[in-house]
Amino acid sequence: MPDRYRTQLINSLSGFKSANLIGTIDENNQTNLAIMSSVVHLGASPALIGLITRPPSVERHTLENIKQLKQYTINHVNHNIWQSAHQTSARYNKAECEFNQTGLIPEYLGDTKAPFVKESYLKYALNLREIIDICSNNTVMIVGEISDIYCQASAIKSDGYIDIESLNTIAISGLDSYHTSQRLSRLSYAKSEQLTQLLSIDGKLKETEST
Amino acid sequence: MPDRYRTQLINSLSGFKSANLIGTIDENNQTNLAIMSSVVHLGASPALIGLITRPPSVERHTLENIKQLKQYTINHVNHNIWQSAHQTSARYNKAECEFNQTGLIPEYLGDTKAPFVKESYLKYALNLREIIDICSNNTVMIVGEISDIYCQASAIKSDGYIDIESLNTIAISGLDSYHTSQRLSRLSYAKSEQLTQLLSIDGKLKETEST
Repeated sequence: MPDRYRTQLINSLSGFKSANLIGTIDENNQTNLAIMSSVVHLGASPALIGLITRPPSVERHTLENIKQLKQYTINHVNHNIWQSAHQTSARYNKAECEFNQTGLIPEYLGDTKAPFVKESYLKYALNLREIIDICSNNTVMIVGEISDIYCQASAIKSDGYIDIESLNTIAISGLDSYHTSQRLSRLSYAKSEQLTQLLSIDGKLKETEST
Repeated sequence: MPDRYRTQLINSLSGFKSANLIGTIDENNQTNLAIMSSVVHLGASPALIGLITRPPSVERHTLENIKQLKQYTINHVNHNIWQSAHQTSARYNKAECEFNQTGLIPEYLGDTKAPFVKESYLKYALNLREIIDICSNNTVMIVGEISDIYCQASAIKSDGYIDIESLNTIAISGLDSYHTSQRLSRLSYAKSEQLTQLLSIDGKLKETEST
């Protein structure tokens, strides 16, 4: 298989991926913003998020900045900013800020030094917890603990579920395909003695039972 | 925050997640099938996929089986099987096979001992490469190398991109919300000196330039 074909093919296999912008800053207050599709939930208590990045020798600024400040932000990419978000993956020099280059607006919230993305409707700050080497291909997983969450209140439902579809959060497939979503339903917690039931957006049982 | 609220909230933060069924078998030919939303692309060459699971003390069958046979399958969840797929998360005894309980059909392909899901349109076999401890919360990442891919040929585009939307692959948000997708566009490889351009599904430049 030619290299580029293989890259497209293998990148398509994991299924739909999250679309997030990672905001960082270095000791000289130089900011960086990078789109990533490898943000993954690790656990709720403590609230941990994983992020796969390329080897330290290849990855340029995000990992370096996180190592320096031990802090970063994750910002959902939405329908209004998906093209600007994709543009952050271009190889800019360290002195060229992706915010300036793409028109996305940096925002500073609370005690977090790392920049958020103003246009994002769901964003949170993390403190670095662990950097784990993945020996099989020399990539790393950055593990961070969530410290602050900023989200439009109306999107947070009574049981804690956040309706990210209402925030127009985007999904990615492969390397470069962007998708909006349409909810089929929420489903009740699966039990061995009972078939799954459809839930409303608020996590309440719907009247019709599903199979 | 109450525990269940916290779990719903934090699980919503990573963005859209992949929906996959993990097929395994143990030394006594007892099969297991489990839906997981934490499958993540690690690299194309070698072709590596990561999968986050709960600690060995809590996770029951998938990790145990993978350790025994060093092999497993990943099967995209599609529009036809999303409710049965969700039902696999119920706590069945080891002797109760999720295939029997949910009606999903096991399929054996090539030299792979682990079962595939017949109803899935995109599925692949993996050999275990590494099990990595995530010390921050005692979870693990299973790293596997892809050995065989089974996919409807029409979904594979000329540049290697797989149109998983045409296969009706589903995305997950939070713990229990299932979503279909609608493509905005593919985008050209981002370059610092040029704005991103829209691509057709085949990865060819569209005529209109985007901003």
